[in-house]
Amino acid sequence: MLSKNTLKFIKSLQQKKFRRQENAFFVEGTKNVIELLHADYKVNYLLYTEKFAQEYPQEVKGFDGNKYLVTSKSLESAGTFQSNDGALAVAEIKPNRAPDLKKNKLILALDDVRDPGNLGTIIRIADWYGIGEIVCSLESADCYNPKVINSSMGSFTRVNIFYTDLASYLQTIESPIYGAFLGGDNIHQRKLVADGVILMGNESNGISEEVGSFVTDRLTIPRFGNAESLNVAIATAIICDNFKRN
Amino acid sequence: MLSKNTLKFIKSLQQKKFRRQENAFFVEGTKNVIELLHADYKVNYLLYTEKFAQEYPQEVKGFDGNKYLVTSKSLESAGTFQSNDGALAVAEIKPNRAPDLKKNKLILALDDVRDPGNLGTIIRIADWYGIGEIVCSLESADCYNPKVINSSMGSFTRVNIFYTDLASYLQTIESPIYGAFLGGDNIHQRKLVADGVILMGNESNGISEEVGSFVTDRLTIPRFGNAESLNVAIATAIICDNFKRN
Repeated sequence: MLSKNTLKFIKSLQQKKFRRQENAFFVEGTKNVIELLHADYKVNYLLYTEKFAQEYPQEVKGFDGNKYLVTSKSLESAGTFQSNDGALAVAEIKPNRAPDLKKNKLILALDDVRDPGNLGTIIRIADWYGIGEIVCSLESADCYNPKVINSSMGSFTRVNIFYTDLASYLQTIESPIYGAFLGGDNIHQRKLVADGVILMGNESNGISEEVGSFVTDRLTIPRFGNAESLNVAIATAIICDNFKRN
Repeated sequence: MLSKNTLKFIKSLQQKKFRRQENAFFVEGTKNVIELLHADYKVNYLLYTEKFAQEYPQEVKGFDGNKYLVTSKSLESAGTFQSNDGALAVAEIKPNRAPDLKKNKLILALDDVRDPGNLGTIIRIADWYGIGEIVCSLESADCYNPKVINSSMGSFTRVNIFYTDLASYLQTIESPIYGAFLGGDNIHQRKLVADGVILMGNESNGISEEVGSFVTDRLTIPRFGNAESLNVAIATAIICDNFKRN
């Protein structure tokens, strides 16, 4: 039976401080939990409903960590979903690993993308476009935040996120660094080669001066109307699409 | 002085029922209120802080409706923002007006986009790409919902939203109707002409069968990785960008 202490432990993982301390994070909802169980994570806890057990008997049977048959109410109490009649799992945080630039021709870099919803959406976009690596500045949203996990729609299992001092990292890069700026080259008119780093900036302030000094190519999404700017996840999607169409 | 009844009236506009009954909606935050005041809306109430009055003295002076100098606390109590040290304004809802297809070569149509954040983001994307008209099914999110207004970042003043029975509307359209589907023509490989209707579907169910029967061209954003799908606002942005690059 699920103890009060275990429930308390899971709830504490909503906060970054406790995720770091315990080196653990949680994933909620049937689809996300199934993706997690099929990926290469060490999963230590599985809380599941009768409904989940009926839909995924193999996954429940094959799970060799701590497993608990619970009610929806317990899932909702442990996690952040208003309603969850499927499952919630706790997994170990993976080591912070730098991308292998020989294997990954095109990667994303994020300079202080702070909103968890934006980071999750960007992870999903990266996964759609086959970009397996994202390098994030240390002030970016934490990729194990439940909102990031949820908005990534399972893509967090397929995209590696590396947190580092972004300026120091970009200094070591020999391939082109493409930065999204207002007033750069029109991406519709430039020949783009899917090789290098696509760098996106903070929601309010864009790319910082220090990080921006490493950009080799300034790119702009052409505007045809009057909106002042685009949301950073929207801009990331449009830029990735332009790189991949060549 | 701002009366309790006026405050109650403004708060009630958070609900669609009261917005329809009063034919009014509110806009909050300095940037959005300034955009509203400079656009062709009939604005009946302006609540503003000392800070706003100092930054925009002309706008406050020139405003001839009911105006109230208030504290941030009053703005936060009337609206939905956790913090608002600028302004909040109440304007009249515009008549539901069908787009003029002779003037607007490319328009957007939304088949039950339910999430207010998605609708607001799509309005901002339309404005970026110079698309001035969006036709929404009757079950789509209400464009006067505060979350839609806020996530549109001022673009609600430049994009006309028309609510109608979408199937009946599309039946009258002679120009091409491009629908976003999995398994349609690859948008990177098709010659696209910026003329007609771009139709996007519901967050979970896509385009309904009835509405989809009017689609003349099925389009797909090519996938290079493993994400199952893209968020509807992200997909709208990528499709608009592809139409505008030709």
